[in-house]
Amino acid sequence: MAQQYCVGVDLGGTNIKAGLLDAEGNVLSRLSIPTETERGRDRVVDNIVSAAERAIAQAGIKRELVAGIGIGSPGPMSHRRGLIINPGNLPCLQDTPIREITRERTGLPTTLENDANAAAWGEYWAGAGKGVRDLVMFTLGTGVGGGIITDGRLLRGHFENGAELGHILVNPGGRLCSCGQNGCVEAYSSAYNLARHAEELIAGGRHSSLEARTDAGEMLMAEHIVEAAQEGDDLATYVWDRACYYLAVATVTMQHLSNPERVVLAGGLIAAGEYLLESVRRHFRALTWKLLDDFPEIRFAALGNDAGVIGAAGCAWEAHRLNDW
Amino acid sequence: MAQQYCVGVDLGGTNIKAGLLDAEGNVLSRLSIPTETERGRDRVVDNIVSAAERAIAQAGIKRELVAGIGIGSPGPMSHRRGLIINPGNLPCLQDTPIREITRERTGLPTTLENDANAAAWGEYWAGAGKGVRDLVMFTLGTGVGGGIITDGRLLRGHFENGAELGHILVNPGGRLCSCGQNGCVEAYSSAYNLARHAEELIAGGRHSSLEARTDAGEMLMAEHIVEAAQEGDDLATYVWDRACYYLAVATVTMQHLSNPERVVLAGGLIAAGEYLLESVRRHFRALTWKLLDDFPEIRFAALGNDAGVIGAAGCAWEAHRLNDW
Repeated sequence: MAQQYCVGVDLGGTNIKAGLLDAEGNVLSRLSIPTETERGRDRVVDNIVSAAERAIAQAGIKRELVAGIGIGSPGPMSHRRGLIINPGNLPCLQDTPIREITRERTGLPTTLENDANAAAWGEYWAGAGKGVRDLVMFTLGTGVGGGIITDGRLLRGHFENGAELGHILVNPGGRLCSCGQNGCVEAYSSAYNLARHAEELIAGGRHSSLEARTDAGEMLMAEHIVEAAQEGDDLATYVWDRACYYLAVATVTMQHLSNPERVVLAGGLIAAGEYLLESVRRHFRALTWKLLDDFPEIRFAALGNDAGVIGAAGCAWEAHRLNDW
Repeated sequence: MAQQYCVGVDLGGTNIKAGLLDAEGNVLSRLSIPTETERGRDRVVDNIVSAAERAIAQAGIKRELVAGIGIGSPGPMSHRRGLIINPGNLPCLQDTPIREITRERTGLPTTLENDANAAAWGEYWAGAGKGVRDLVMFTLGTGVGGGIITDGRLLRGHFENGAELGHILVNPGGRLCSCGQNGCVEAYSSAYNLARHAEELIAGGRHSSLEARTDAGEMLMAEHIVEAAQEGDDLATYVWDRACYYLAVATVTMQHLSNPERVVLAGGLIAAGEYLLESVRRHFRALTWKLLDDFPEIRFAALGNDAGVIGAAGCAWEAHRLNDW
């Protein structure tokens, strides 16, 4: 009997999410359990295996019908070696061969993928990228993450650090990024850096309605910037515009490199809705070339909070299709 | 009997070069004939077919031993459709289905590839990229061209305009590029733009030893800039340094996108030798992140003037291997 389901596991520093999905991307079960990093490696590994098992049990599906398990993990990690290397928010899992462990303990084929790649694969397979073979996803959260799918394949790169879209240099010599480079798109267009950029300018003496918050010792959040910009505050408008502008610069660069049909925006910042999309599209049109009309469609991700689990399950389906676990 | 040879044809605006190669990339015959664009489409097509036939005849190889023909063509063109679309220097070939025509007239399977992609494939297959699966090539000529090979495959993109490396935005709002964008790497780092950049600064009133040439109405060449920079001229040193700096910026961006093991520099500008390589490597080290040590090796192309023919033949070998003509 042909297998009809795959498990997706989204491994995070706080929670492990899991679900069982069919081959069309429908979610038959979903659950979230604490990662319990403070209890050490063995416990976290138990929790990963347990989350996968519970996703199957909760859906009430026979085990023989499950093709395998996909795990999305924060980097650095190695898909090829099935190895979690050294994730900042999961130090206890350093050098853990989680693919082999999960395979042995569940008896199911397992694949491991970078969480950003998995999320992009999820949108490609079952979300905003359906029907498209060439896609780029920018995830605008604490950092700027991403994924590149070219001719229906994830681009991983020789060192398996490909598609680090947040570190495209959009303004060489500009704001310092947490990676050590100056002028990465992440230094302007992530939710976190949007707020830090505004705080910096205020600390440098520029005036803004946001001072009501900073003077009270409050840490600015991305939504404060968006709100103040929409109310016409000059500093917030400037910082917001730079975030959209540099994201458009990175999009032009991606247009000429992987030449995608669609560019998908995901992550917390897309809560700004049309205010974000309209600005990025406008800057993109002003920045891009006039030579050819190979313009990608820019749109929002469709999978929301399920993206990690759906993407991980999608990676399992792809490993199953290629028989490459 | 297994086929042992492929023909490579490098279609240029002035000359058509062709050669017969074995499966290891050895060149058994090579020839160059005038393209004769001024004599119109039928004549140019005759010349393409004739160049391929002569490459076989000149090597004295039996036709049954030839697996097929690869043609490298300037863009815009379509590999998928085997179609030359509208190349600026070959207007008479607009909308010519050269793959089908060549196949019919020679009786040999034929593949068509973008000339920049073909040159990158040549280095990957038989040149500076041998033994590597992930490679980026920058060709520094009149423009900045390039090719991306990821996991052993050419990256073409949805619109087949991928790997237009010259149009990575390295200085948004900067020098106007011929493509209509401002601040492309091509606007600083191509041989042509290096000279134009110097002329602009001189016209703007900056002094330089190069004025001896410009005052005499001479058009500056890249080698004049390199020579003057090496002799300590400030303006030439500045322009040369910007060329190397922005090429390094583009290399950092490629490090984080296709994450290659090797970056290959080709084209006329590499005549500057170590003076170029040392400067690009130094800027790269200063610009790149400190997070991981996934640094590509930067080196020069190895195939020289044969790159186009070797690359086109290599594309034919790949089509043969995949049985995807």
